[in-house]
Parts: sequence; C-alpha cells; structure tokens
Amino acid sequence: MLERTYFESLDASDPLASFRDDFVIPEGVVYLDGNSLGALPIRSSERVRKVIENEWGISLISSWNTHDWIHYPRKLGDLIAPIIGAGVGEVVVGDSTSVNLFKLLASALQFQEGKHVIVSETSNFPTDIYVAQGLVSLLGAHQVQLVDSCELVDALDDDVAVVLLTHVNFRTGEVHDMKKITSIAHSKGALVLWDLSHSAGAFPIDLRDIGCDLAVGCGYKFLNGGPGSPSYIYVAERLQSVLNPSLSGWMGHVAPFEFDSKYRPASGIERHLCGTPSVIAMAALEVGLEIVGRADLSIVQEKSQQMGDLFIQLVEQQCEGLGLSLASPRDSSRRGSQVSFHHEEGYAVVQALMAKGVIGDFRKPDIVRFGLAPLYLRYTDIWDAVDALRDVLRSETYCRTKFREQKLVT
Amino acid sequence: MLERTYFESLDASDPLASFRDDFVIPEGVVYLDGNSLGALPIRSSERVRKVIENEWGISLISSWNTHDWIHYPRKLGDLIAPIIGAGVGEVVVGDSTSVNLFKLLASALQFQEGKHVIVSETSNFPTDIYVAQGLVSLLGAHQVQLVDSCELVDALDDDVAVVLLTHVNFRTGEVHDMKKITSIAHSKGALVLWDLSHSAGAFPIDLRDIGCDLAVGCGYKFLNGGPGSPSYIYVAERLQSVLNPSLSGWMGHVAPFEFDSKYRPASGIERHLCGTPSVIAMAALEVGLEIVGRADLSIVQEKSQQMGDLFIQLVEQQCEGLGLSLASPRDSSRRGSQVSFHHEEGYAVVQALMAKGVIGDFRKPDIVRFGLAPLYLRYTDIWDAVDALRDVLRSETYCRTKFREQKLVT
Repeated sequence: MLERTYFESLDASDPLASFRDDFVIPEGVVYLDGNSLGALPIRSSERVRKVIENEWGISLISSWNTHDWIHYPRKLGDLIAPIIGAGVGEVVVGDSTSVNLFKLLASALQFQEGKHVIVSETSNFPTDIYVAQGLVSLLGAHQVQLVDSCELVDALDDDVAVVLLTHVNFRTGEVHDMKKITSIAHSKGALVLWDLSHSAGAFPIDLRDIGCDLAVGCGYKFLNGGPGSPSYIYVAERLQSVLNPSLSGWMGHVAPFEFDSKYRPASGIERHLCGTPSVIAMAALEVGLEIVGRADLSIVQEKSQQMGDLFIQLVEQQCEGLGLSLASPRDSSRRGSQVSFHHEEGYAVVQALMAKGVIGDFRKPDIVRFGLAPLYLRYTDIWDAVDALRDVLRSETYCRTKFREQKLVT
Repeated sequence: MLERTYFESLDASDPLASFRDDFVIPEGVVYLDGNSLGALPIRSSERVRKVIENEWGISLISSWNTHDWIHYPRKLGDLIAPIIGAGVGEVVVGDSTSVNLFKLLASALQFQEGKHVIVSETSNFPTDIYVAQGLVSLLGAHQVQLVDSCELVDALDDDVAVVLLTHVNFRTGEVHDMKKITSIAHSKGALVLWDLSHSAGAFPIDLRDIGCDLAVGCGYKFLNGGPGSPSYIYVAERLQSVLNPSLSGWMGHVAPFEFDSKYRPASGIERHLCGTPSVIAMAALEVGLEIVGRADLSIVQEKSQQMGDLFIQLVEQQCEGLGLSLASPRDSSRRGSQVSFHHEEGYAVVQALMAKGVIGDFRKPDIVRFGLAPLYLRYTDIWDAVDALRDVLRSETYCRTKFREQKLVT
C-alpha cells in the first residue's frame, strides 16, 4: 500500500530536485502537460528582454554580426546535439516541426528516386501525416501508406522511400525501438525520418548509435523553449552532401550575402535553413536547452520511469472501479515520459482535474494523458494528482455533458 | 541651396513627429536601415514579457484558450489587412517569408495545371528566386524564367503559371506598377504573387483595387516586428477555396483538435497555416502592427517621398564629385521608401558611416542604400546623414581595402 510519506522520501533524495528551481511553477498547480508545452524557465524572460532591449534595441541591424544572430540557428543546434546523441554540425534550429518534416521528406523523396511510398503509422502524430499527405499531393507520383504499428515491418518493400515515425506515440506513450526499425528499413533501402518531439529532453537518445538518417523535433515540449518555439532538424553527416534542400531560402545558401540569383546550398546542415527564424524565439529556446543540457538524461529517465510506474500503481490502488484503464505500456522501458488512461468521459475528467489545478490533457477518442517532466515535477505531485483524480471520479459532477462538445486546446 | 534650418522647420511641422516616441532610437544614431530591420518599439519588450510571464508562465498550456493564442495568427493577419488594403480574413501570420512564398507558389502551380513556368526578375530579392528554384527542382516539370524588368511583359505567354515579383526592388527602390502588371498577367492567364516585404507599412497598398491574387510580406522591416518576425500570407478571397495548401500542417486543418489522420484544409485563409508559429514572436509583431495601424499611410508616403527627394538633392549639393551616382528613380512616385547610390567603394563607405552612427547598408555590387522609415526618422536626420556621408567621402581612410573582404550582414 503506497503512502504519501513514501513520495515525500523520494523527493528528499531526488538528485534532480534542484532543477525545479529553474522553472516557474504556479502555486497550487500540478503540471502534467510538459509534453505539450514545457513550463517556463525562470531565466527565459530576462534573456528575451536582453535580446530585445540590448541587442535589437541598441545594436539594431548590426546585431547580426555583433551579437552573432547569424549563427544562432547553428549554435542552438549544437546545444541540442548532445541531447539527442548527434554530432556537432548535425543539427540546426529554425522553422516549425511541420515545415521541417516537409523539408526532409521532400529531400528524401528526391534522393530516393524511383521509390514512391512514404510509410507511416495510422496513429502517428496527425501533423506529421498531414505534411506527408500535402507533399505527395503536390508531387503527384508518390503515396502515403498508413499502417498499424504491428504491420510496419511487413509494409517495407523496395518501393518505400521513407519511413516516417514519431519516437513516442502521443496518445499512449509507447516507444518505438528506433535502432531496430532503422536497421530493418535500411535493409529494404528505405530512409527513416524520426520525429523526436515527444522524447528529446525526457530520456537519452543516441542517434549515432541508432544509425539515424533524419530527424526533427519540437522546441516547446520537454525542451521548454516556449509556445511555438522553433523546431530543429537533424541530418546525419553522411547524408548532408547528398540531400538537397527543397525549401531553399537565403539562410541555407552557401553565401547568403552575395545576393546571388542562383541558389547554391551551404555544404553542411545549414542548407536546411530557409528563411530567417525569430531571434526572440530562439533566445527563449536557448534557456530551455541550457537547462536540459545540464541534466544527466539517464537520471532523468530513471525518475520518469519511476514516476510513471508509481502513477500507474497509485491509480490502480486509489481509483479502482472508477472507469480508468491503462492505455500506456506497463513496462516502463517501452513507455515514454507520460502515462495515459482510457476513460469514456475523458474530456470531462480532464476539465474537472484542471479546475483542481491538476493540468493533464485529453486526446480523442478517450485518452486522459499525463506528461511527466522530471526536471520540475516532484514525486508528491504524482500522489496529489492521483488523489485529485480519485476525487474527481468519485464526484457526481465531472461528466456533465455540457463539457463534451467544447474544444479542449492542449 | 538647402540649409539645416529648413530641415528643422520640416521637423517642427511634421504631423508624424510624435510617432518617434513609440520607438527606441539609440542616442547618436541615424538609423537608415529600417527597410532591413525596423527599430524597436518602446512597448515591445513589455508586451513580450507579459506573454512570457503572465501567459506562458502562469496559464501554461491553457493559454491556447484563455489567452486565445490559437487565433493569434489570424488576429495579426486582420491587423495587417488594412495596411495592405486586404479584407478581413484574407491575411494570416506565421512562418517565414521564404516558407510562405513556397506555400503560395506550390499551391499556384497545382492550381495552374498545364502551365509550367514561374516568371520572375533577375533582380528580384534572392530568397524569392531561391524558393522558386527549389520548388521547380522538386517538381521536375516546371521551370523558373528570370528576365529583366523591361522584358517582363514579353515573357508572359500561355505557359506562365505564376509571376513572382517584389513590389519594391531591394537594391534600387524602384516600385512596380502592381495594378498594371497584375492586369496584364491576368490577361495571359497567369497569377501574380507579390512580395510586399519592402513596401508594406511604408506607403499605402490597396490589394483589392489592384486585383491582387497572392502576396506575402515580412514582419521585421517597416512593420517593426523584430528580427526574424513571422511573415504574413495573403490570398484573395475569391481564390481561397480553390487553392490547396501544399505545406499542410495541423494549424491549417479544418478541425485541428480532432487529431484526425486525414488532412482536410480549413475553409478560409487559415488553411495556409502549417505548424505552430512562435507566440512570443507574434507578441512582438503585434506591437509593431499597432503602431503602423495608427498611422495615415498616405501621410507616411508623403514624408517618405519628401525625405527621399531631399536626400537626393542634398547628396548632389554636398557630395558632388565624390563618386556617388543615383541608383534609385529620381521620380518619387516610382521610388519606394529608400534611396540608393552607386559607389565603387560602397562597402567601405557604409562601414565608415556606421562608425559615425549613420546606419545604412551595402548591397553588392556597389549599392549604398539608405532606408527611410518615416515613423521614426526626422528630416534633420537626413541632413546629418548626408553631412556624415560627405565627411566620409572627403576623408582619405574610408576605402581601406581591409574592409573589402569582410562580410557585411544587413
């Protein structure tokens, strides 16, 4: 029988406990949505203020040189690289995750001449699928094949140009075996493009060990870069000179200040830049990356897994018979940094929890999802969240149908 | 013979004079590069701080609803609409200008089935050309035809799908007759995509009167949205339902929170959104747009034209025989909000001017360019700038060759 005192003792001995001081966590809030929008780092506001007032305001256009704005996308890429096991010069920041997916898919299809299929999962993150659908509609001769996870390997034949997958399933938290899938795809002549949005920063990733070809990821989930933070793009060094950028803008030009009328791509990862990313937004992302960069991600993973295990145990102990069933893998090695449950009134449950200061989210059709951001969550937060969950489920008001038709934006 | 006192009297009677108080202009600086990066509005930093601390920090993920982040791209689009003579619901903000150019070019080529050519000018802004080149390289069956301005009309035949032009030439400041070109292009069955980056906010534009099809523009020049500010996209209402987005991301979906696996575009301008734009960057842009929105753009244009005329007159009066020759149209009705001169040591001239606090910029091969942002420039700034220019040109040191090989980032 788990007791709150046990959670208190875990907090007392948590090697990551001091990281919470790097974040703004509103009083009375248990924030279990860091996998959708990471919390605000304490220093972000001041960093952004300096960039606005001291750089833009004082140095104006000269800031591109004097404050090295021109290399900001690459500088942030090199901060992300160790978080995902990439090398220096394999990552660059700019544009949104959706745009970066388009770039790499388009480049990969051009490279894989004669192959016509993008394989992805039916349960992949919707925007990833939408981007692939838009691209094939533009190109005409390609197609997107969506399959269930268990059919993935069977779907790989000689006509598959790219496999497009998200590392951690956004609904269930199930983790793909990146190394295994990449290896099988390579044996069939396919490239693999991984979306790391729901994993980077929450546990160790080693793209080099995996033999990863291509990846993108979001800056505003576990990297705490702020709403709509610029995304990043990874291209393995071995592919950098053979993949041509299709979204070819001035920042990806080999000599952007030549103002030449012919596009010639930069030699390295910079060729996948396009227009000018927001410098202000990059400043906020930088602070988030510095924090994650100080953390030992294997310890972060241990905490995440333990929190997830305890969350599941507690729900089964406290909420038995209240309509929840586990949607995430029970085995923590197969689970990302979240736990999800089915509940037929999931939307109303999440709304009622929010009213109690416990912020999780709802994903259609019936998923109640709790993100676990180990850098700012306490073990006692898990206890308190499940306590609130039990209260909500025991109350008579949580499933008021008036909530059902409202949109929940998370 | 022009005297400084005349410029002082113009400042004293300038109906726009009070707008200068809305901006941070560093002491001792004459900023003639607002056509590259607009100056910092006084209130931008505080607005951004509020979004970071009070919205992201306190309301966290709920801000998408409680602070209406989800409609921010459209809200800013509706602030831009009156500045460019567009209707409510014809403009949306997000992504970079380059990415937005790609979106509209791709959509236009899909729509113009059977036509294979994008016509643009050799002297168009390079990133616009690069984007077109990348797109045709991806598609295979299309081509980009670059012509001189004077050959533009002759280049329009039945195979032209899109004419891609920038309203104001970035080197010379020459203004295209949008209405005439649009009309001729339409008579040949071509769509026209205008880049308004160097014009919007500096003088009145009436896209409806012009019969404009498609346009994009940058947020960080005359709109003062900050470095790398999100860009905007305009699609005439009559084309909105027939142009399909090619960069199809979740924010352009008709029901983004359905998390459906099939992309279905939103019905209005929102379909041209893709991923999530930076909320922080949008907050900065909003302040810039509010300022421009308060200005009468016909008065802004009058001031801009008068400043440009005076700049040219003064250069001819003060700098005769010092190697400058006018690169901009002398006729202010054909000139955007800048004046440019040829000088064989242009790069060194600009560097030497910067050392004196006069910030202009250099564009290859020999263009010395001075942007005129009427909302924060004084007439006396024009006098002082030309005074500094004469001093630089008369000194012996300005053309030190050591400057020549350095990159100027502006």
